Amino acid sequence: MSTASMRQPRNENGINTYRRIVEAALEVLATRGWRHASVAEVAERAGVTRGAVQHHFKDREGLFTAAVQHIMDERIRRIEALQDVDRAPGTGTREIVHTVVELHQGQAFTAALQLCMAAADDPVLRSRVAAMELEVGARGFWALIELLRLDGKEQKVRTTVQAFLDSARGLGLAGILNDDSRRRAQVTDRWVEMLDELPRFG
Amino acid sequence: MSTASMRQPRNENGINTYRRIVEAALEVLATRGWRHASVAEVAERAGVTRGAVQHHFKDREGLFTAAVQHIMDERIRRIEALQDVDRAPGTGTREIVHTVVELHQGQAFTAALQLCMAAADDPVLRSRVAAMELEVGARGFWALIELLRLDGKEQKVRTTVQAFLDSARGLGLAGILNDDSRRRAQVTDRWVEMLDELPRFG
Repeated sequence: MSTASMRQPRNENGINTYRRIVEAALEVLATRGWRHASVAEVAERAGVTRGAVQHHFKDREGLFTAAVQHIMDERIRRIEALQDVDRAPGTGTREIVHTVVELHQGQAFTAALQLCMAAADDPVLRSRVAAMELEVGARGFWALIELLRLDGKEQKVRTTVQAFLDSARGLGLAGILNDDSRRRAQVTDRWVEMLDELPRFG
Repeated sequence: MSTASMRQPRNENGINTYRRIVEAALEVLATRGWRHASVAEVAERAGVTRGAVQHHFKDREGLFTAAVQHIMDERIRRIEALQDVDRAPGTGTREIVHTVVELHQGQAFTAALQLCMAAADDPVLRSRVAAMELEVGARGFWALIELLRLDGKEQKVRTTVQAFLDSARGLGLAGILNDDSRRRAQVTDRWVEMLDELPRFG
């Protein structure tokens, strides 16, 4: 038996099933919380058998951790893909900054947060989720430095971009219980200004 | 029977018991999460009877909500109290900013976050916790504007202070699973610079 926590699908049917399971897992985790999120409910919402879930994921921990990892990877790729967008001069920072903030909103953010809170009190889960958080954080940080053509060797650049990413996380938290969209838009516009003041290449 | 969710203690014995219960409630909520946080465990950790807990708090929801409200009030008061500290010129912003960031760390922050995540999926709890979040957020915001002697009529001042408070929340999240103290110190120092660049009174 494989020790990997997930088995990557190889054909289109497999990919669709995998995707449906991942999306159902995020929904169940976001709405039920870690303790009440069950593999059975994920299978039911995805419209597959429990066997199909077990075919792709070793166990419950593997299912929900891989689902959060999957959505984080997808979000980082969406940030990286902004590199290829043909932007009018001056609109670049705005689009990038608003995209990063919005990627910290919604059900996927809530699901990631539920996993994080569960991991705080579970040694095995903790080491996996902590490592994932560090890796995703570093990738997002460097993608942003590159996208904004900032000089990453400058301490001031690095700490300001970190402050922005922490702020995006904080805006994610603030959006869970209250409709925070108006305030969020204003804070995000301010970040466009603050990041545009940093030294950059080209 | 009173409909208030907590009965304020009037004498010193009552205040000590109330405080022990509140601290035990935060500890239980932070480590067990909402679903597994029980009144019995709070009473046991506080070294009081369940009856003593029921004397001060109407029900389980009232106990944990009041405990989080209590610690939030206490933290806002600690920020407000910085007003009275006799500071050397130039050291003011640094002390204030580092204090605000550190108040978003540790067990009390984790407990507040557990309550917030539980409230996301519970309509009754949601309206109480959402209102508390807005009220605490507004008080902290204006305390900070006043402490730093900033011009709160300026949009740029308001959005930058909001961005800082969101960043402090994000740093709170980042500190739950990983030892983030070194990065946190650097980001916080950068905030001292950014907030010191804002227009201020006097």
